[in-house]
Amino acid sequence: MSESDNFVVGLVQNPCAVDPCNNISLAEKGVREAANRGAQIVCLQELFASRYFCIGHSSEAFALAEEIPGPLTQRFQSLAAELSLVLIVPVFEKAAPGVYFNSAAIIDADGALLGVYRKMHIPEDPCFHEKYYFTPGDPGQSFPVFKTAYARLSVLICWDQWYPEAARIAALGGAEILFYPTAIGRLLSESPEVGGEQRDAWTIMQRSHAIANGVYVASVNRSGVELRERDAKDDEGIEFFGASFIADPFGRFAAAAQGEESKVLVTVCKRSEIETTRQTWPFLRDRRIDAYKDVLSRFLANVKNMR
Amino acid sequence: MSESDNFVVGLVQNPCAVDPCNNISLAEKGVREAANRGAQIVCLQELFASRYFCIGHSSEAFALAEEIPGPLTQRFQSLAAELSLVLIVPVFEKAAPGVYFNSAAIIDADGALLGVYRKMHIPEDPCFHEKYYFTPGDPGQSFPVFKTAYARLSVLICWDQWYPEAARIAALGGAEILFYPTAIGRLLSESPEVGGEQRDAWTIMQRSHAIANGVYVASVNRSGVELRERDAKDDEGIEFFGASFIADPFGRFAAAAQGEESKVLVTVCKRSEIETTRQTWPFLRDRRIDAYKDVLSRFLANVKNMR
Repeated sequence: MSESDNFVVGLVQNPCAVDPCNNISLAEKGVREAANRGAQIVCLQELFASRYFCIGHSSEAFALAEEIPGPLTQRFQSLAAELSLVLIVPVFEKAAPGVYFNSAAIIDADGALLGVYRKMHIPEDPCFHEKYYFTPGDPGQSFPVFKTAYARLSVLICWDQWYPEAARIAALGGAEILFYPTAIGRLLSESPEVGGEQRDAWTIMQRSHAIANGVYVASVNRSGVELRERDAKDDEGIEFFGASFIADPFGRFAAAAQGEESKVLVTVCKRSEIETTRQTWPFLRDRRIDAYKDVLSRFLANVKNMR
Repeated sequence: MSESDNFVVGLVQNPCAVDPCNNISLAEKGVREAANRGAQIVCLQELFASRYFCIGHSSEAFALAEEIPGPLTQRFQSLAAELSLVLIVPVFEKAAPGVYFNSAAIIDADGALLGVYRKMHIPEDPCFHEKYYFTPGDPGQSFPVFKTAYARLSVLICWDQWYPEAARIAALGGAEILFYPTAIGRLLSESPEVGGEQRDAWTIMQRSHAIANGVYVASVNRSGVELRERDAKDDEGIEFFGASFIADPFGRFAAAAQGEESKVLVTVCKRSEIETTRQTWPFLRDRRIDAYKDVLSRFLANVKNMR
């Protein structure tokens, strides 16, 4: 890993079309733009190569999955080597017959496949039927830190972003920045006002990870409206928020999409900012690791005590 | 504990004078106002009975400490019984010669002393010299839930608010609301702009606890400017933020002080809101308790890996 005072991060946000070729081309175009603007580490949005098929249950969607390495990662490995970029490339990963993950490949600046992160927290909610498609990541591989050419980074995927434990473990592992490739939006059956509150909660939660841990947080989300393909009523679909952003180690917005559908964000991240923030607000100094074991429990309250 | 759809929370925010009698009277006045406006559970700010003596090192300040029960808690036990209120009363607690805690007494609506919470995370920073005064709470008593007449609640104190682990364990213990008595502000040597960013980080962090856990969060902070008593240069002091607030289980502001120095906030908290929020965004369902053990580590990265 090269030593430098700064590293430069790029995020590529787009709406997704039915044809993966379009999405992959659009992503590559965004990566090239980010590189032109100085980015060294570029992250694509969750499952960027396809529509968000988890909106329904479709056994045909499994055909979208591929192995790592496979055509998708190989294409972006070439691009990484060409542009000397670190790339974070989400993949619907086929690991074995019947074993599928919601993954991200981490590709180093020489094009080498550095590793794979497999989403640990899997949602199952109306229009977000991920438990049907994905088995969760293995706890033995949980929340690793990847030492890339430009920074030590962790990748967490979408639903992972609601869990402070994941962010904490990544930061304790030495991550300087957490990347959150994401696909989140409001159900069309919900009001825009509710959607705004959801988007607020989403940003607050991730900014809190930056603050609690003194790390950069970069979240890249898809945009646009996607409907369920079969038997869809008008209100059965998702309007994805877009609203990708990068927060600094004190939770301030360093860059943020302002309602655009397609957007490339590029931001300089300063190592000195991590050090200064952690010196001024030294939360890691005072953690009570002797008192946290109950974090490992499912729930503590006795059933009899609950209403 | 009575069964009800709602419980009503009050927070009493004030600047503090040098004379404890003034502060205690002002607090009692606030408690009575909150009760008149329907509050059932009222929380006072951290160390409300005195100036924030931790601004410097003063052995004389230890004289402010008292036992629990003691005159301060007994006074508020009477008030609780008179008004049928649950009261959360921060106390500079003398537990034994040389053993002092930054504590809060939890008094039930019949005036009984239900328990004591002793601050677990102790800061030590310019003008916040708490490690000089307070020994940290015992891990065996960490983050308990108190079943009061009106709600199951946990109390966490000030610096505790930066630690997602504490909020999580309280919520897993069955807390419906987390109270954060607080004394936070900007150093006078820092710009108001920096102070605003600190206040933002402070609210984001606590709102994130509400969101991550699907609980109410009530934070009550002192206001006003306090200078170091001895050898104080003009810029040696703290402007406390005030800015007390109550967040609902999705992190929305249910009530918030708007820059006033003295303020009594009263808010209805709905149990159905906890249930609905947790059904809609079921974060507790998907926690990976098989993968969180590294939360119990101080730091994971090998020293050799660090710059």
